[in-house]
Amino acid sequence: MSACIVLFSGGLDSTTALYWARKSYDRLELLTFDYGQRHRVEIEMARRTASRLGLNPFVLPVDLSAVGASALTDPSIPVPELDALPADGPLPTTTYVPFRNGIFLALAAAWAEAREIRDIVCGFNILDSPDYPDTKPEFVRAMERAVRLGTKVGTRGQALRILAPFIRMKKSDIIRLGLGLGADYSTSVSCYRGNEIPCGRCPACLLRQRAWEEAGRPDPLLARLKKEGKR
Amino acid sequence: MSACIVLFSGGLDSTTALYWARKSYDRLELLTFDYGQRHRVEIEMARRTASRLGLNPFVLPVDLSAVGASALTDPSIPVPELDALPADGPLPTTTYVPFRNGIFLALAAAWAEAREIRDIVCGFNILDSPDYPDTKPEFVRAMERAVRLGTKVGTRGQALRILAPFIRMKKSDIIRLGLGLGADYSTSVSCYRGNEIPCGRCPACLLRQRAWEEAGRPDPLLARLKKEGKR
Repeated sequence: MSACIVLFSGGLDSTTALYWARKSYDRLELLTFDYGQRHRVEIEMARRTASRLGLNPFVLPVDLSAVGASALTDPSIPVPELDALPADGPLPTTTYVPFRNGIFLALAAAWAEAREIRDIVCGFNILDSPDYPDTKPEFVRAMERAVRLGTKVGTRGQALRILAPFIRMKKSDIIRLGLGLGADYSTSVSCYRGNEIPCGRCPACLLRQRAWEEAGRPDPLLARLKKEGKR
Repeated sequence: MSACIVLFSGGLDSTTALYWARKSYDRLELLTFDYGQRHRVEIEMARRTASRLGLNPFVLPVDLSAVGASALTDPSIPVPELDALPADGPLPTTTYVPFRNGIFLALAAAWAEAREIRDIVCGFNILDSPDYPDTKPEFVRAMERAVRLGTKVGTRGQALRILAPFIRMKKSDIIRLGLGLGADYSTSVSCYRGNEIPCGRCPACLLRQRAWEEAGRPDPLLARLKKEGKR
């Protein structure tokens, strides 16, 4: 029986990763990180998304608020507000969480080794955040190598793999792929501000809006919120 | 002003790393991990050792008991008991904690990046535990590469470094080096069983005993316990 771990934050990319992994593996273990993020609501929403597939994410606590240096883990650093995505030039990077993906992958590797699971699937994407070094393909490769060398599973020939199938894809294409796999995005949240209802002005909301526009579809999260009278 | 992070568990090797780093850097930040270890007493002892140098380790929680698969994090797995170190052949590895050093280094890298510190010093040692993949020099090199690629500090040219100065040294030589640097080992603990007073029969106690014998010195921990009437 094939098994994998999915890094599952409950956002658009990792929801797609969940549906992608479901096609390829017999058994999935979902890891969701409670890392002191401002948008902690994503954990509850991740549970709801997973439950539709009969899955229950394991929520692993790793408090990064002591590390700080990010608007997502330090309440004194404001989440950037924008009127629109910049036509040119970078997005604000105060929402970058230092080496977050490195920490998540290291914990997933331990989880994988303890359960003799070989593959770790994640929804990392470099196009959204070209200034986030821990979403770059070369980082993922280097981390895979470190994980292979630093675990017994890896050294036993059954090398661990880190799969980031959407790493070079446009977000609208990730959405299209997910819709084709039957993904339900109605409880996927992206907003950095930490509400189920998107603020519409943080970089994550703006990237999401553009992606659904480009995909030519209404955002199922907004449709659900409207239906429930929340918006 | 030069600064580094020391991974500081409070055992023999990391106590030596602390004194080693003190010679080389103006400012030290000590990271101690509260990871659900059976021998949690090491955290309190680490505080005592550090306080003699006017330092206060930052204790970072990352609960690995959910990961399990180790006698150090799962109380249902017994700590191995031995009459003596095997003359030949490997030590029991049920005390191996899956990818623990990878997780610690990832967290230290985040800490380093958030504070713009370049160097991470650790007391990893391969001779003690040749079957622990996450203490191998090639793993440390691979992790250093991943950390450089996955952090902004790294990509800004100010590459992060992971220094493991004792990685190929015998434990007795590590002790000799530390004594030469003035290290006080009287509150360093090694025992896996989790008491300040060593059990004398777990692999960590046996390795420690042999190291002090080889160094031709009495273990300062035992001397202190005797003086305090604890043993």
